[in-house]
Amino acid sequence: MPTTPPGAPERRPRLTPAVADARRAVRESLADLPEGSLVVVALSGGPDSLALAAAAAFEAPRAGLRAGAAIIDHGLQGGSAAVAERAAAAARALGLDPVVVRRVEVGTAGGPEAAARTARYAALDAIAEELPAAAVLLGHSRDDQAETVLLGLARGSGTASLAGMAAVVGRYRRPVLGLRRAALAAACTDQGLEPWHDPHNGDAAFARVRVRSSILPLMESQLDAGVVDALARTAEIAREDSDALDHMVDEIAEELVDLAEGGCSLPVAALLANPPALRHRLIRLVADAEFGLALSRAQTLEIARLATDWHGQGAVHLSGIRVEREGGRIVFRSSAPEPPADPQSD
Amino acid sequence: MPTTPPGAPERRPRLTPAVADARRAVRESLADLPEGSLVVVALSGGPDSLALAAAAAFEAPRAGLRAGAAIIDHGLQGGSAAVAERAAAAARALGLDPVVVRRVEVGTAGGPEAAARTARYAALDAIAEELPAAAVLLGHSRDDQAETVLLGLARGSGTASLAGMAAVVGRYRRPVLGLRRAALAAACTDQGLEPWHDPHNGDAAFARVRVRSSILPLMESQLDAGVVDALARTAEIAREDSDALDHMVDEIAEELVDLAEGGCSLPVAALLANPPALRHRLIRLVADAEFGLALSRAQTLEIARLATDWHGQGAVHLSGIRVEREGGRIVFRSSAPEPPADPQSD
Repeated sequence: MPTTPPGAPERRPRLTPAVADARRAVRESLADLPEGSLVVVALSGGPDSLALAAAAAFEAPRAGLRAGAAIIDHGLQGGSAAVAERAAAAARALGLDPVVVRRVEVGTAGGPEAAARTARYAALDAIAEELPAAAVLLGHSRDDQAETVLLGLARGSGTASLAGMAAVVGRYRRPVLGLRRAALAAACTDQGLEPWHDPHNGDAAFARVRVRSSILPLMESQLDAGVVDALARTAEIAREDSDALDHMVDEIAEELVDLAEGGCSLPVAALLANPPALRHRLIRLVADAEFGLALSRAQTLEIARLATDWHGQGAVHLSGIRVEREGGRIVFRSSAPEPPADPQSD
Repeated sequence: MPTTPPGAPERRPRLTPAVADARRAVRESLADLPEGSLVVVALSGGPDSLALAAAAAFEAPRAGLRAGAAIIDHGLQGGSAAVAERAAAAARALGLDPVVVRRVEVGTAGGPEAAARTARYAALDAIAEELPAAAVLLGHSRDDQAETVLLGLARGSGTASLAGMAAVVGRYRRPVLGLRRAALAAACTDQGLEPWHDPHNGDAAFARVRVRSSILPLMESQLDAGVVDALARTAEIAREDSDALDHMVDEIAEELVDLAEGGCSLPVAALLANPPALRHRLIRLVADAEFGLALSRAQTLEIARLATDWHGQGAVHLSGIRVEREGGRIVFRSSAPEPPADPQSD
C-alpha cells in the first residue's frame, strides 16, 4: 500500500517553490478523481516527467489515490532498454507502484515524430486498460505548449491547431502544462533527482527541436522575453474559442444536416444565416463526419461559395466526394462508387 | 475626367500575371462602391502602395469610379518632403486625381511605430472627409499580415490579435491583402514603375522589421516555406472566429448587463451557463464598454472565478474599478470616486 501510515517516518525532500508548484499543479489536476483510483505517470525519465512523477508520488496518497508509472521504450536509440530501466528504478524509488515498462515497435507513418507518438499512445492506452488506470499523466510543460502552437501556426490550420494541447483529453491529463520547463528541471534538482537527457532533444532533424533551439530563442530575444507565456495564453484562448464554436456547430448540425437520398445535405439558407465561422465549421463537419475527409481552407471556401456566391458553378470535386448545389441545398455525395451521370436523365 | 474616352489611345503597360493579379484584387475590392465614388490610395511610394495605385488607376475608371491619392509626409527622415513629392508625381503620372500631399506631426505616444500610425490615420481620415472619398485603399500585403500575426502572438492577447488586419474596416480597404509582397514588387517592375525603398524598412529598431528580416525567414527555412501563407490563413480563421463570438456576446450582453445601482452587473447564472469563450468576452466587454479598461487574461480569469469558483473571496481591485460578487450577480463599480464603505452600514 503506498499510503503513508500516520506517524510513520517520511522522506522529506527540500520543499522549494519549484517543488511546491509542481505538487500544487498535480493536486489540482487530480482533485476530481474518485478515492482509490490509480493514476499512471507516463515517464520518460526526462526532467518534465520526472518532476511530475515525484509530485504525483507525493500528492496521490494524500488524495486517497494510488500512483504508478508507465515507461515506454521506443527502441529508437542504442541503450534505450537501459534508459527505460533507469526510469523504472527512479519511479520505484519515488514509491510509484505499479511500474510498467513496455517496449514498442515504432512505424514510419507520418514521419518519425508522429510514428513514435502513435506507438507511445497505443501502448499507454493498453497499459491504462490493463491496470486499469483512471488517468494517465503527461509531463508536457508550458514550453511544450508554446512549441506546439508555433508548429500549428506553421501549418496554418486555424484556431484548432493554435489551441495546442488540452489540459485534459479523455483519460490523459497534463498537470504541469502551466509550468515552465526550467521550473520542472529545478524541481528535480531540488529533490536530488537526476533526469535523463534525451539526445533526440538536440537533434535538429525534428521540427520541434528547431522551434525550441532556434525559433523561440530568436523570438524571445527579438520581440519579447515573455513570448512563451504569450503563446501559451494564445493557446488557451484559441482553445476556448474553438471549443465554443465546435459545440455550437454540433448543436446546429443535428437540426440541419439531412442524411437522406444516398448523400448528405445542408440547407443553403441556414449556411447563409450563420456567420462564416459556423458556416465553414458546418461544411468541415459534414465532410469529416460523413466521409472522413479533413477539408483544407481552400476546399472549405470553394464549397461555401456554392451558397454565398452562387452563379451556377459546377460541382466541387474532392478526393472521394462530390459537392454540388441542388436547389436550396448543398449536397455531399461519395463520388467513388457511383456510376457516371447519364446525360439523358435529369 | 479620369475616364478613358472611347477610342482614345491608351497607355498599355505589360499585362503580366503580377499586374493582372493586382488589378483583379482591386476590381473585386471596389465592386460594391456606387458609380461616381472617389477612392483614394494611401501612397507611400513603396512597392506595395505603388502597385496598388497603378491597379486602382487602371480599374477605377472601368468601374465608373474616380481614383485619387493621399501621400502622408511623416517628416521623420531628412528629405521626406522630396520623397512625398516624388510619390505625388508618380500618382499624377498614373492618372490619379486628386493627389493630396499632407505633412503631419508625429508624436511619441505608444512608441515610434504607433505614433506614426496615429498621425497617418488622422491625416487620412481628414483627407477622406475633405474630398470626400468613399474609400481609402491601403497597400498591406499578405507578408504584412503574417508579420502582424506574429507580432500579435508575441503579445498573446488571443484570437483578437491573431486576427491581424481586416480586409475592410469602415472606409479603409486593403485590396492586396491576399497578394505577396514579391508579387506587388513584380507588378511595379512589369509596369516600369520605380518604387521608393523606405530606409525604415531596414531599421531593426522596429519590431516589425525584426519579424520581417530575421524571424519569418528563420521560420521559413526551419519549418515550412509556406509559413507566410499559413500565418495569413490563421489570421483569416481567427478573425472569423473572433467576429462570430464578439457578435454573439454583443447580443447576449444586451439582455444580461444591468446598468442600474451606480454600477454595472452580470448575473452569475448566465455567466455559468455560457462557455468560457463567451463568459470571458462578456466580462471584458463590461470592463471595456463601461469603464474603458482593457482587461488582461489574468484579470479576466480572476473575475470569472467570482462565478465559477466562488468560495467567498473578496473584491477584485483593478485600476479604477472594483468587481465583487453580490448574491447572484457580479457587480462592477468605479472605485475612484466612491467613499470608503462604512463598516456600520450594510
